[in-house]
This record gives sequence, C-alpha cells and structure tokens, in this order.
Amino acid sequence: MKIDILSLFPEMFDGVLKSSIMGKASEKGAVTFKVTNFRSFTTNKHNKVDDYPFGGGAGMVLMPQPLFDAVEAMRQTHRQKPRIILTSPQGKPFQQHDAEDLAKESGLIFICGHYEGFDERIPQHLVTDEFSIGDFVMTGGELAAMAMIDSIVRLLPGVLGNETSAVTDSFSTGLLEHPHYTRPADFRGLKVPDILLSGNHEKIAEWRHRESFRRTYNRRPDLLNGRILTDQESRWLTEFEHQKEK
Amino acid sequence: MKIDILSLFPEMFDGVLKSSIMGKASEKGAVTFKVTNFRSFTTNKHNKVDDYPFGGGAGMVLMPQPLFDAVEAMRQTHRQKPRIILTSPQGKPFQQHDAEDLAKESGLIFICGHYEGFDERIPQHLVTDEFSIGDFVMTGGELAAMAMIDSIVRLLPGVLGNETSAVTDSFSTGLLEHPHYTRPADFRGLKVPDILLSGNHEKIAEWRHRESFRRTYNRRPDLLNGRILTDQESRWLTEFEHQKEK
Repeated sequence: MKIDILSLFPEMFDGVLKSSIMGKASEKGAVTFKVTNFRSFTTNKHNKVDDYPFGGGAGMVLMPQPLFDAVEAMRQTHRQKPRIILTSPQGKPFQQHDAEDLAKESGLIFICGHYEGFDERIPQHLVTDEFSIGDFVMTGGELAAMAMIDSIVRLLPGVLGNETSAVTDSFSTGLLEHPHYTRPADFRGLKVPDILLSGNHEKIAEWRHRESFRRTYNRRPDLLNGRILTDQESRWLTEFEHQKEK
Repeated sequence: MKIDILSLFPEMFDGVLKSSIMGKASEKGAVTFKVTNFRSFTTNKHNKVDDYPFGGGAGMVLMPQPLFDAVEAMRQTHRQKPRIILTSPQGKPFQQHDAEDLAKESGLIFICGHYEGFDERIPQHLVTDEFSIGDFVMTGGELAAMAMIDSIVRLLPGVLGNETSAVTDSFSTGLLEHPHYTRPADFRGLKVPDILLSGNHEKIAEWRHRESFRRTYNRRPDLLNGRILTDQESRWLTEFEHQKEK
C-alpha cells in the first residue's frame, strides 16, 4: 500500500511512522509512506495556504488551490485511483469497519487540516471520504490521520506477527474485549480470578465471552443495538438486567 | 499543567510534542511534558514488561508491576494528586467535555498500552479514568494519548492565539461547524455562496447557524438527541424532514 500524507507539519510524523508497527510495516515493504508539505504547492508570492473567511469571523481558512494542486500531483504517482481522505470533526465517525475497508485499497492520500478549517470546496469536490476520529477538537488533522493510518496498516497482510491477533480485537467481534490477566497471580494482594488458573478451557472461553458481553452491556450498551444475540447472550442479558433492578 | 506520559515507545512523541500548538504551549510554559519508558521500572532480570495471559490465548499482556511502580514514582513529582489516564478501546468514549474537564487539572499521567492489552488490575486499581478515542483498534495507546493531550492543551489559558477560537468549535456548540469559504470567490468555476459576499452580517449568521444545524441533522443526528431546540431550529427541522419525505 502506498500512503501519501499532505500536511503543513510534516515533522510531526517522523517519530510515529518510524516506530512500532508502522515502522516495521514499512521496513517489511507492506507500506510506503510519503509526507509532503502542501505549502510547496502554493502559486502565490508568499506561499500562503490560508486566508480570511468570506462572511467574516475568527480564524483562517485553508484555500482550495494548494490542496487541489498537491492532491493532483500525488494522484499521478499512484497506479490505481487512490481514495482521498480528509480528517475533520465534521466527518463520519471512523470505525473498525472503515479501517478494514481502507486496508483493501492499494493507495490512500490523507489531507491534514489546521487552523479554523477548510474551504468547503475541498471536502465537496476534491476528497472521497471525510472522517472524524471522535467528538473532540484537535489543533489539526495530523493526529487523526496517524490514528487512522495505524489502524489500517496493522491490518495489512504480514504486518502483525504471531504476538498479536487482529481477529479477536475489540470491535471485530462487536463486543468490547474481556479482561486480561498475567503474572503474578497475586500482586500486592490483588488476585487473578480462579477460573483463569483452572485449566478448564471450555469454562475459560465461556467466562471470557460473558465478561466481554457484560463489559459491553455496562460501558457501551450502544454497541449492542442491532446485535443478534446468541441464546447464551440472551440469558446473560436477562440476568444483568435483573441484577440492575435489585 | 504537568503531563507525564508512560510509554514503551517514547520516540513516537518527539515530533508531535515539539510541533504546532503543543510545541508552542510548552515554549510558553503553559504545559510541561515528560515522556518516560516504563520498561525502566521493571524489577525482573530481563526488563520484561509483559507475559502470557492466564487462561491461554494469543498475545502478550502488560504486567502490573512496572506500571504500578512507574505511576507511583511519577505521582511523587506532582504537587497535587494527578488524574491517571489509561487509553484503551474498552474505555469511555473521549469527548469534548472530557477535554474541558481535564484542562482544569494541574497534572495528568497518561499510560499508553501496547500488545494485546493490560493486566486488569491496572485499570481496576491504578488508573482514575479509562478513555477510548473511537471504535477502532490501534497498535498502541500512544496516538490516542497524543490526540487527547492535543485537545486538552489547546484549551489551556493563553495557548490559542487570536488566530483560532476554541469557543465556536464543533461540539462546543453541540452542532457540527458550518462550512467555511475563503478566496478565491470563484475557483475553477466552483463558487462561494452569494450570501457570504453580501456583507449582511445578520443574514450570514443565520445562514451559518442553519448550515451547521443542517449538517448535524444529515451527518450526525445522534448529536441532536436531547438538544433543546430554538424556535428557529424547530422550524428548520420540520423543513428538513419535509424535504426528506419528498
């Protein structure tokens, strides 16, 4: 996969793209990253990328010209038509199925905004996808792009080793993950649940499914909307609701 | 504000904490960052931070000892008791009001996980807040922590200059932001809405409110749940619903 990133702060990406799984993925050749400062695509004398908003108001707005030209130049370096992704708080909330979907592409171009916002002609006529990573405001789109890129790259074939598994992740199963425990079995008097030390794999799997379901029920009931429950999950649900009433 | 970050990949933070608003905030003295590798707090011979999960399964789990000891050491460098924040997909979805809330603290300690997960005694007995930045899986908690830190730091007094305003942000008003437009008024035949060039500030303010409301209605109707609508918003809502039926 070829990933182009357009940003006014390319130095923000240095540490992140070289570290951890993203660094490994690019060493293995599963992905190539290119970060470009779109200020170099301005055609005005002072390399200005932004201007005052029409209609007044605080903040500066990114102008269409530098980004249209930068995206067009990047696009020519891709063999297949890349998806063009804008990170903004106005976008569709980015979810695991979007990461899975984008991981199938051969190329992506990310546009990271800064300042007050983008000229609306950019999302309307240049980009293919506008995503938000959450209902909070950041100073720019760089960290949102990095978060999305990380979640996409780790799904590429050969990137995750045996030490991690993408299949049992939270959200892939539609539930939050069950609690994990490791050594020591007793840490300052805080003990690991007995069942996990029992060696009974069937009981352990059931306990994990139940705790995963319970946690989702308690913390993120929204994730259960529209879920087709198994018989066992239905019984647990009745039980949890009953406990709540008491 | 003093922010401690505990991570196995401290180099990921270099570019980000020095750039843009976070760099400026620390130059101005509004915030001090310290990134610590909690591997240096291990008491075992091989500086191991993780171990196999009790009960079996793929992936390695972060052990309690290094993180308990690291947090306790960091905590002693804070004058007031800091909130201790864990980033994980199992956490409460992080929202703008959480950023506003955390921006009032004098100190924060962020714990960034990696691998399959944390020993459950860490979220249960060590941390005060467990947050998720979205329903997608990343290889570690570093980018989630950076995103949260950016959204908190930009709210600290004196950090944002006149060029940006935190007050009219998306989510602060409960609505997505209205579209922005800047020069040129005609870009490759794509034109700015006439109203924005009219000079009629009252009409412009109304147009912006309406577009902000419309966008929220179309893209994120969930944000309107529980909102107390103004008379004008109620009229718009009827109108949009009417348009939809046609």
